[in-house]
Amino acid sequence: MRRIKLVVAYDGTAYAGWQVQPNGVTVQEKIEEAIKKITGETVKIHGSGRTDQGVHAIGQVAHFDLVTSEISFDSLLRGMNAILPQDIRILTVCKAAHDFHARRSAKWKEYRYFIWNDKVIPPHHRLYKTFIRQKLDVKAMNKACSMLIGRHDFSAFTANPNREVESNIRSLTALKVIRKGKEIVIIARSEGFLYKMVRSIAGYLIRVGEGALPPQKTLEILKSRQRTAMVPTAQPHGLFLWKVSY
Amino acid sequence: MRRIKLVVAYDGTAYAGWQVQPNGVTVQEKIEEAIKKITGETVKIHGSGRTDQGVHAIGQVAHFDLVTSEISFDSLLRGMNAILPQDIRILTVCKAAHDFHARRSAKWKEYRYFIWNDKVIPPHHRLYKTFIRQKLDVKAMNKACSMLIGRHDFSAFTANPNREVESNIRSLTALKVIRKGKEIVIIARSEGFLYKMVRSIAGYLIRVGEGALPPQKTLEILKSRQRTAMVPTAQPHGLFLWKVSY
Repeated sequence: MRRIKLVVAYDGTAYAGWQVQPNGVTVQEKIEEAIKKITGETVKIHGSGRTDQGVHAIGQVAHFDLVTSEISFDSLLRGMNAILPQDIRILTVCKAAHDFHARRSAKWKEYRYFIWNDKVIPPHHRLYKTFIRQKLDVKAMNKACSMLIGRHDFSAFTANPNREVESNIRSLTALKVIRKGKEIVIIARSEGFLYKMVRSIAGYLIRVGEGALPPQKTLEILKSRQRTAMVPTAQPHGLFLWKVSY
Repeated sequence: MRRIKLVVAYDGTAYAGWQVQPNGVTVQEKIEEAIKKITGETVKIHGSGRTDQGVHAIGQVAHFDLVTSEISFDSLLRGMNAILPQDIRILTVCKAAHDFHARRSAKWKEYRYFIWNDKVIPPHHRLYKTFIRQKLDVKAMNKACSMLIGRHDFSAFTANPNREVESNIRSLTALKVIRKGKEIVIIARSEGFLYKMVRSIAGYLIRVGEGALPPQKTLEILKSRQRTAMVPTAQPHGLFLWKVSY
């Protein structure tokens, strides 16, 4: 048996997210189908985490086991990319240790949220960046970031705080906002994120950047541990799962 | 009567090019329809030049005349972007002199051709960059560029050298290849380009970059004034009409 690690990039526009589910085509099932076609083996691939409908990835990581197939990694890479649709690409295929697990072995994950901040959005950005017309105050956004960094209960920044998870406490090790001309990027890194946590933080930071909320409010919202209308969920198409580190 | 100048960006993926034609939807007709809906006036817009099926634009320029409508430029901009599909955006609307002509008044045009040069192309680049797997020799490509810059008969670098044009002599004022990591950009500037000239030059430069042809061959090909298989036409989706200067 060989355990194999994949790094996967996808354009989430056409998919109902990463994970196999009853309604809609998912990235996971497309990859499992491709592996079946090439190796004849029915595998289940395990991703580092789910991405929601419409969210993209540049560095999703997944693992699976091949039991009998002796295919080389290079043939697997080329074969999968030949079969998969153009909006899913396998970037690398490599051997993993037998106890490697894409989700459980991850040290941290990085997401990046892209915003186009101008009067009009050029069409080739429209599928990969959220369009915000009003000029955002990046300094105010970064002030809010500084209050979110660290180990906190992020119940106020998850879509469903009462979801059956052990705890809503997470360590946000990095959170910053960078402007490059008309493009703004929010970079968020953590050992693990709650459900829709990055999009909730992005939605909140956008409101702060627009001046709808003062950054000083952040600590109060965080401490309330209540999800309110002050924290909207930003649109999915601006979000990329950027990197998973092991 | 007011003459109006538009700067237009579009994703050419879904269009049969810029100019109105019998088969397929074009960018020009979409814009004319939008102006008709907003102002009630039936106008003909004049672009700085045609772009082929699948070619994109970030800075196409067009002009048209409004006879009776007194709509403000800001209302026109917002109204057009509200009506137009997301893959066509009006970037600016401004007043032009009565003798301004988008094509005839242009001093020069710049096209940019984008290449993703790696083993795999991440999906969010697939619609806007041409994928070349083999590592390109940018130095060799620039050597070829230096022989193409200047005033020449470009019959060997146009799709139909016997087209009914007065002459195939053009001044290529700038042509260079820049690598930024895995992305390669070809920048071409001229007072005017022949039919499919930029894609022909890009196709040729890619062959040189792949090592299929030595850059020293360039002068010989140029002087032959014959279009041959040594000059393939690069795919349309890597090409952007970047800027028109007046």
